[in-house]
Amino acid sequence: MGLTEHLRPERFLADLARYRRVGAGADGAIDRPALGPADCEARRMLLADLAAAGAHATVDAVGNVYGRAGEEDAPAVAAGSHLDTVPRAGAYDGPVGVLAALEVLRALGAARARTRRPVELVCFTGEEGSRFPKGTLGSAVAAGALALDEALALRDASGVTLREAVVAAHGDPGALPRPDARGRFESYVELHVEQGGVLERERTRVGAVERICGLVQLTATFRGETNHAGTTPMALRRDALAGAAAFVSAAEERARADRSGAVATVGWLHAEPGGYNQIPGLARLGVDVRAPDPGALDALVADLRAAAAQIAAARALAVEMAERQRVEPAALDPDYVAAVEEAARARGVSVRRMDSGAVHDALKLAPVVPSAMIFVPSVGGKSHTPEELTRDEDLVTGLTVLCEVIARRAGVDT
Amino acid sequence: MGLTEHLRPERFLADLARYRRVGAGADGAIDRPALGPADCEARRMLLADLAAAGAHATVDAVGNVYGRAGEEDAPAVAAGSHLDTVPRAGAYDGPVGVLAALEVLRALGAARARTRRPVELVCFTGEEGSRFPKGTLGSAVAAGALALDEALALRDASGVTLREAVVAAHGDPGALPRPDARGRFESYVELHVEQGGVLERERTRVGAVERICGLVQLTATFRGETNHAGTTPMALRRDALAGAAAFVSAAEERARADRSGAVATVGWLHAEPGGYNQIPGLARLGVDVRAPDPGALDALVADLRAAAAQIAAARALAVEMAERQRVEPAALDPDYVAAVEEAARARGVSVRRMDSGAVHDALKLAPVVPSAMIFVPSVGGKSHTPEELTRDEDLVTGLTVLCEVIARRAGVDT
Repeated sequence: MGLTEHLRPERFLADLARYRRVGAGADGAIDRPALGPADCEARRMLLADLAAAGAHATVDAVGNVYGRAGEEDAPAVAAGSHLDTVPRAGAYDGPVGVLAALEVLRALGAARARTRRPVELVCFTGEEGSRFPKGTLGSAVAAGALALDEALALRDASGVTLREAVVAAHGDPGALPRPDARGRFESYVELHVEQGGVLERERTRVGAVERICGLVQLTATFRGETNHAGTTPMALRRDALAGAAAFVSAAEERARADRSGAVATVGWLHAEPGGYNQIPGLARLGVDVRAPDPGALDALVADLRAAAAQIAAARALAVEMAERQRVEPAALDPDYVAAVEEAARARGVSVRRMDSGAVHDALKLAPVVPSAMIFVPSVGGKSHTPEELTRDEDLVTGLTVLCEVIARRAGVDT
Repeated sequence: MGLTEHLRPERFLADLARYRRVGAGADGAIDRPALGPADCEARRMLLADLAAAGAHATVDAVGNVYGRAGEEDAPAVAAGSHLDTVPRAGAYDGPVGVLAALEVLRALGAARARTRRPVELVCFTGEEGSRFPKGTLGSAVAAGALALDEALALRDASGVTLREAVVAAHGDPGALPRPDARGRFESYVELHVEQGGVLERERTRVGAVERICGLVQLTATFRGETNHAGTTPMALRRDALAGAAAFVSAAEERARADRSGAVATVGWLHAEPGGYNQIPGLARLGVDVRAPDPGALDALVADLRAAAAQIAAARALAVEMAERQRVEPAALDPDYVAAVEEAARARGVSVRRMDSGAVHDALKLAPVVPSAMIFVPSVGGKSHTPEELTRDEDLVTGLTVLCEVIARRAGVDT
């Protein structure tokens, strides 16, 4: 009898329903910024669930939560994701990977299975970057891509440091283990909703992710001249908002023309002073550029910087482009990707290789341990919205494939 | 000896310097929203200055402040403007007209002049519309263009009604005289800074205003679909901000193409949810359209509504356009305009006829009493900004012409 026979899919679905209530508003939209009250409640639930599953639960200095099956100290076959969310989020982005790993730990317990390698659940801190000004915080520190002290010094919009948030949730980081994926993990696999519409359109049940797009986020500031909306002839204006709007259109146009899989999004924009009757003297916007390979990413970013400079020059505006965040694209481990495909096929599940347009903790882990990702379909490709949905049958398929992958990698003997 | 010989220009300039400190921040930018703490301080100063000038000071039920020279109850030759400001304002827009009228009252006192008609200063409440959701509040109510009860029920962004603000500043509106420009004024003249660059470019010292542009302010809401910035292909997006940006460009383009003197300005824009990594599902913006004649105004508004609908249809977005405010253009009194010209010429001051792109209290008064406006040059055409400047010599010229106009209209016998 295989390990997957010990899974209880209805318990996994009930877990998803239970965790989705944490931080949910009246309309079901979820707000769980990293280490905020709702995320802390979800962390307490996870620690309790891990203990109940007989796993050894620990927290590291950046707040990553671990749950290890067995006592062994050797590098583990790790699986997980995150529990924090974007503002007004849905229930699947992150929790699916954490709670599926939890169910695999329970199956290991129920099977009284021995494994050649330990199996470990990991729930990374602050993947979304919706509270502190960097995403994939916990995985970046664990992978050594971000220094622990640098991470702990990051401040949220209220000036609270990540260190203070970790102290409030889990106690002094100095007394907690240093994050160290290289020493702790043999490999990493993450089950996640696709967040795009490819699998649904192609009626494929599972995606084996080959590459994860990198991203560059820029803040652009256009400066012109504030003036009276009624008395300034159109020809004499230096309207910062009109310049910013031209940039939004240029960004969309250039990303549409790109054939490398790159995309660009202006997610926010504001103008000052902000009266109906004032020509805006200042406009700021945030742009997010993504591509699955480093050359394409740099090319589109350079293109957008040139467009901004050109628009500003034509309108007698000044423009500054500040890089807020840069994440290099990553290729996942070819053998592990092949193993995901094989595991899916072995379970009779349709599978395709694909790239991820979204950043995931696996992006940070990939350079330091063999990493893989398993995608399941998102209805209508919707994501980062309360309408996000993955059907129960697809969630269970994902759980089953994850369990099969882990069982093979860890060498389960039931 | 004429009345103008009794003006003390340095006192008028000192008044401007004194009032500009009220509500000024460290960088000199002034915030005096209608009946807020700073506006109330300016009102107290004005009431004290009127008393010191020997004028009879009163306040009406909408908070308009009056100061009448002499005891007579007959309709007065009125002159004034407003003391409230836009956010981060300069020192001239409004106070010039009020404080010049104050100096004229002082000159009447100093001359111990008798007049055939009484002379009255008026300081109108809430001309700018920066606190309550309508501009020219006090003059609109005084002219009967806005019902007193409707005005008093308006709420600011914090939910405070105009009634509550009047009560706090001046006591129960029910115990104050009803605003009534038709009964109270024989005519109205307003000295104001041009707020545009025409006089400066043409080196003309004074403008005699013939028409005041009307305006329509619209709030446009574009609705698309919030989604993940990394996983949604460009072709499948319904990006509300991209639609709003296209509208900003279309509004600018259509106003540039207009040859009737119309302008259009998008003064603010915001997108939701607002994360770097979220395609905005909603974008709202405020657009202000102005023209000196009603046909041109309606034509440009219809044009912008059509552009919004076309953009929305092409992008599978929904769009709503809500009219926030409509002010019909007004022609000033031809005889009074001619009298301004003559008074300027009589003082040896260069003068030209022109339209006003900005709304003024005179726009509201024009339909009910013969009204005129006197413009003085704005350096660089700058307005609604802390850099707004009118040179002392131009301010004094404006004061002198205003005094001459009032002296002629009121029939001063010194």
